[in-house]
Amino acid sequence: MSETLKRIGILTGGGDCPGLNAVIRAVAKAAIGDQRQVIGIEDGYLGLIENRFRVLEYLDVSGILTRGGTILGSCNKANPSHYAVPDGQGHWTIRDVRDQVVEHYQQAGLDALVVIGGDGTMSGAAGLVQRGLNIVGMPKTIDNDLWGTEITFGHDTAVATAADALDKVHTTASSHHRVMVVELMGRYAGWLALHAGVASGADVILLPEIDFDISKVADKCLDRSRGGRGFTIIAAGEGAKPAGSGQFVDRVVENSPDPIRLGGVAKHVADRIEKLTDLDSRAIVLGHVQRGGTPTAYDRVLATSFGYHAFELLMSGRFGRVVVQQAGEITSVPIAEVADKVRTIPRDYPLISAARKTGTSFGD
Amino acid sequence: MSETLKRIGILTGGGDCPGLNAVIRAVAKAAIGDQRQVIGIEDGYLGLIENRFRVLEYLDVSGILTRGGTILGSCNKANPSHYAVPDGQGHWTIRDVRDQVVEHYQQAGLDALVVIGGDGTMSGAAGLVQRGLNIVGMPKTIDNDLWGTEITFGHDTAVATAADALDKVHTTASSHHRVMVVELMGRYAGWLALHAGVASGADVILLPEIDFDISKVADKCLDRSRGGRGFTIIAAGEGAKPAGSGQFVDRVVENSPDPIRLGGVAKHVADRIEKLTDLDSRAIVLGHVQRGGTPTAYDRVLATSFGYHAFELLMSGRFGRVVVQQAGEITSVPIAEVADKVRTIPRDYPLISAARKTGTSFGD
Amino acid sequence: MSETLKRIGILTGGGDCPGLNAVIRAVAKAAIGDQRQVIGIEDGYLGLIENRFRVLEYLDVSGILTRGGTILGSCNKANPSHYAVPDGQGHWTIRDVRDQVVEHYQQAGLDALVVIGGDGTMSGAAGLVQRGLNIVGMPKTIDNDLWGTEITFGHDTAVATAADALDKVHTTASSHHRVMVVELMGRYAGWLALHAGVASGADVILLPEIDFDISKVADKCLDRSRGGRGFTIIAAGEGAKPAGSGQFVDRVVENSPDPIRLGGVAKHVADRIEKLTDLDSRAIVLGHVQRGGTPTAYDRVLATSFGYHAFELLMSGRFGRVVVQQAGEITSVPIAEVADKVRTIPRDYPLISAARKTGTSFGD
Amino acid sequence: MSETLKRIGILTGGGDCPGLNAVIRAVAKAAIGDQRQVIGIEDGYLGLIENRFRVLEYLDVSGILTRGGTILGSCNKANPSHYAVPDGQGHWTIRDVRDQVVEHYQQAGLDALVVIGGDGTMSGAAGLVQRGLNIVGMPKTIDNDLWGTEITFGHDTAVATAADALDKVHTTASSHHRVMVVELMGRYAGWLALHAGVASGADVILLPEIDFDISKVADKCLDRSRGGRGFTIIAAGEGAKPAGSGQFVDRVVENSPDPIRLGGVAKHVADRIEKLTDLDSRAIVLGHVQRGGTPTAYDRVLATSFGYHAFELLMSGRFGRVVVQQAGEITSVPIAEVADKVRTIPRDYPLISAARKTGTSFGD
Repeated sequence: MSETLKRIGILTGGGDCPGLNAVIRAVAKAAIGDQRQVIGIEDGYLGLIENRFRVLEYLDVSGILTRGGTILGSCNKANPSHYAVPDGQGHWTIRDVRDQVVEHYQQAGLDALVVIGGDGTMSGAAGLVQRGLNIVGMPKTIDNDLWGTEITFGHDTAVATAADALDKVHTTASSHHRVMVVELMGRYAGWLALHAGVASGADVILLPEIDFDISKVADKCLDRSRGGRGFTIIAAGEGAKPAGSGQFVDRVVENSPDPIRLGGVAKHVADRIEKLTDLDSRAIVLGHVQRGGTPTAYDRVLATSFGYHAFELLMSGRFGRVVVQQAGEITSVPIAEVADKVRTIPRDYPLISAARKTGTSFGD
Repeated sequence: MSETLKRIGILTGGGDCPGLNAVIRAVAKAAIGDQRQVIGIEDGYLGLIENRFRVLEYLDVSGILTRGGTILGSCNKANPSHYAVPDGQGHWTIRDVRDQVVEHYQQAGLDALVVIGGDGTMSGAAGLVQRGLNIVGMPKTIDNDLWGTEITFGHDTAVATAADALDKVHTTASSHHRVMVVELMGRYAGWLALHAGVASGADVILLPEIDFDISKVADKCLDRSRGGRGFTIIAAGEGAKPAGSGQFVDRVVENSPDPIRLGGVAKHVADRIEKLTDLDSRAIVLGHVQRGGTPTAYDRVLATSFGYHAFELLMSGRFGRVVVQQAGEITSVPIAEVADKVRTIPRDYPLISAARKTGTSFGD
Repeated sequence: MSETLKRIGILTGGGDCPGLNAVIRAVAKAAIGDQRQVIGIEDGYLGLIENRFRVLEYLDVSGILTRGGTILGSCNKANPSHYAVPDGQGHWTIRDVRDQVVEHYQQAGLDALVVIGGDGTMSGAAGLVQRGLNIVGMPKTIDNDLWGTEITFGHDTAVATAADALDKVHTTASSHHRVMVVELMGRYAGWLALHAGVASGADVILLPEIDFDISKVADKCLDRSRGGRGFTIIAAGEGAKPAGSGQFVDRVVENSPDPIRLGGVAKHVADRIEKLTDLDSRAIVLGHVQRGGTPTAYDRVLATSFGYHAFELLMSGRFGRVVVQQAGEITSVPIAEVADKVRTIPRDYPLISAARKTGTSFGD
Repeated sequence: MSETLKRIGILTGGGDCPGLNAVIRAVAKAAIGDQRQVIGIEDGYLGLIENRFRVLEYLDVSGILTRGGTILGSCNKANPSHYAVPDGQGHWTIRDVRDQVVEHYQQAGLDALVVIGGDGTMSGAAGLVQRGLNIVGMPKTIDNDLWGTEITFGHDTAVATAADALDKVHTTASSHHRVMVVELMGRYAGWLALHAGVASGADVILLPEIDFDISKVADKCLDRSRGGRGFTIIAAGEGAKPAGSGQFVDRVVENSPDPIRLGGVAKHVADRIEKLTDLDSRAIVLGHVQRGGTPTAYDRVLATSFGYHAFELLMSGRFGRVVVQQAGEITSVPIAEVADKVRTIPRDYPLISAARKTGTSFGD
């Protein structure tokens, strides 16, 4: 099978994530060392749609292991199955441009494609697999919420960045006896807030998976204030919301008596705590800093392992699959199985119990 | 003179700042090693007003060199010369409580006081010097804007934290061809934004000292976008504002045709850029993270030097002075000279010229 | 069962390891929160033998999550089953002091003991389990070579430190076209060298598990030198040795035609490479720096999870077991199963294949 | 004057140093922005001698601000005034190859040269100034021992790396009640050991400038052991030596009753302490790790300032000078004034007094 793989394309889609370059390097070095040609596709699916390809030589991928970002560029929105085409008069039409993509793929002489991205990108990949393209997928999300895999590269780096911010805020909080609410990424799943919160010993962790009762959070702050440790650190996933407030619809909580916006939970909580407790409270939104930077050693190893596994899938002709880790082993599952699905934290997740037992409240 | 100094008090006022513990340690170790007793005063002037003192032993200050925050606690608002006293019915009366402070000082048998803080704290210290207290001041501000000294401890750590955030945002910006505006601390002076911006190679730096022209900032972003490097990093001091927008009064720009709030410059600039250029633009407010964390090696050395110099001033009976660095040497000036004054960046500061020549715009 | 557990002892044995304090904190906070008393035993088994115990209160274990080292102290050598007792005349007698330990354990009213340590400490624990003590073991090794568990806390931090050193050496090597050999910890197993080497993109990785042929290593250096990248980074586990050189006996290779000492591989390799290739070569021995420092976020989470699991084992009366991770899940196995055993890297380990495919040689 | 400067050469000589790329970037961006051409010379003076030049474009120097090492390569030994030429039969002849260098300089159409390096490189530059080349020098040394300047870029990064290693060793030392001796760079001057030692709160600092009495060092270790803090951290500059042991000649102490080699002080001290005190003692040689890595924010700002000042000197035709910092200001002095000179720490340096007062011994 692998005899016929002369030319392999590679693209990165979705948000920035530490370790993208490490994956590109692993796939490209393995392929080039094996006498295959590697074609870099620029800006995710956009490059496939707009026919922007370039050959990646060995030196192009040397020295990129430790760099954040992606040398190929990325794009958040372009899904070939429903691509928004501007009509030049301020309107957009949604079109299926997969024929165009297949044509560019064939013109470029590509035999297979490695697609690195999140659930949206995998959804796009599933659509191209239907058109017969030979695709191997690679999960990418700092949120660690992709279905079918225990871990994704980039998450460990994001946790390290978030925990470092929480550690830093700790000193201010304790010097000033304040409540500090730090909002971390995670719309649907709270892995990042949970891991960073536990790593930094946060007093309260708010997760999308566990609706919080603001009065219980306030009580925790008051207890700590009275108990002599006059400060409280709260790590909040951006999708966390008060109990009884409905679901996030688009970016606002539906039917909420106390409406908050996605990405507004820190301010909401800090304001409420201050009103309920009279304690000085501040909100910090860490933002895009969590997506950037040099990957941790852990993520570089993981990304290299994932990249190598993708190459092995290519060589054995096992297309239409995405690389995952399950039960500590790197393996693969069909792309269609993971596309458009989210992995949230189970209520009985042992780390939640561990955190509760070591003094952390989840506001429930 | 120093024979009579049996008991030395020490307090930390104002916002959190890396290196506070290093100063406390240096003063206390030097004093204890010299057979003096050291009294830690809790929560800044509040502890003086409320009589909250405790003896600091050698072991209390061992191992704190590398820790952020202050083991003594701090307080932002309590100036003994005009202290806000609650009347229990929701109102506050401003009173001069210096008599009370002098009484507590004498009751505790203090012979001198080391006061570590920013311009507000120094203003309070000047008021106590007038009442005859033996005070040595120590400048503290991550903003580096205290009059009379070239550098203050904590600034280098804040610059390192801010530059690290800019570096991290760089990868996202370049992968997504975005404009990223990162708001850094600095209400009156832009030292932090300038130093972090230069350290990280920011494309645009906005300073309180140089009012910006948003159309020039937008042009810079467009130039970069067209020139193939489709991203722009903007480091903005929180006090930066558009030309012609008046002055910040309290926290809002006075008489502004285009009003912005202090601490809102990043959002303002990102919104305007997106409108003017159609480039994807994002705002990040780094916030309190800049105040926290382990001090850099540089700040630990500087704080130790400053602390030792404070001790020398005490021993030689040179009270009423504040430790500063001038022309690269550690020395001191009268507290009254520095209280309530701000040191801003001169227009002809060489680093601004260096930044311009190496590709950075200041939006003017 | 857990009703009877009123007092729980905890000790740390063997070499320093990041995350020890995080485990102590997790066990102690869980136990104290559950109305149990926690007794800290000083300096590992030495404290048990010499009866040095102290109560750990909640505040004693607050704020230690992020600190390296162990607040309890440790000791490398004291195994109660064969303890070296000085006779006061310069000689030592090996004695079984388990009766003494059991007596101290009973006198202190301990109901159970958490023993944190490496294979030697687990061997000591197995001996105490035979005497009826209620023990839960916790694996600890930066080398990650303990039998029965996929991962141990501390390893990730050591990998991060080692990879950072390799990254730093990279710049010197490339600026000066040198061969740099960096010796990393790992006597029997090369996990640390493998993970750090892959994370940093080392050109050659030498492992205890794969005897190297120095001429092949030299050829790799020459190839790189001729190919325009005139430098080579070699990550060497301290137990790596040339093919045909016998086994390490105590600390020297037995029957070796070319004898090297354990902990001398970097110098050996650098000298030989320089002779064989005429390339400028340097050896660096990273040493104890690998054992220290603030644990990574990953290790803090892992140590907290392990500590909580140990508490759960205590509460359910499942003594004589050691906490491990298998197939990605935290679970436990009998202490006797893991004592005195080492887990080495299998020859067909996927990461070795990944490293080979991405340009790394193993000298074989 | 500057009208005639059409083409500017730049080279980096001597050992690796963080900030070299930041200087190259600053000089090149300023020059290119000013319509000058910039020529990169490879591997220091070797490139001048062997005629290895290449044009540096704007994109060649983009993105290198944060990278360690030098994109131009460096060379330790090639001084054009006395260059060692191999005769092909294993011998070397020392020759003055300055005529050859002048020829290559003229052939390449260079109008001026920026030479970045340490005292040896400045000595070479002084020789080329004598032949009429237009040279601006830039001091470079992590040791911070160049005559005529208070600070050199790279030093702050090396201090940060060294202090981080001392911090890490701290945890092991305290957990195991050990004496840890960490050897840091600094043959002639102890700035690195002093700054890192103070930053990390080392208990003993050994400097080339202050010969130590091993029995006093041992007493300090015993005092700490008895006083309940059973560990001691010693930071030793590699040029430190026992009192009465003569001077280092080449790399060995001359006429020493107790001979030690340059770069052997840590092992020497650890062995002696262990014999004198029976305390468990270990030596760590940090080595080349100190030269590498991403420059600190401080060093990036300093290197950018220095680079810009070099450009200003070029533009104003002030050749034969080297950029320095004096009294906190960036300025310049004649190259001949600084060549072959070393700046050591004065005995009455305030930081030494500060360290003594805060508990550090210098072994004297």
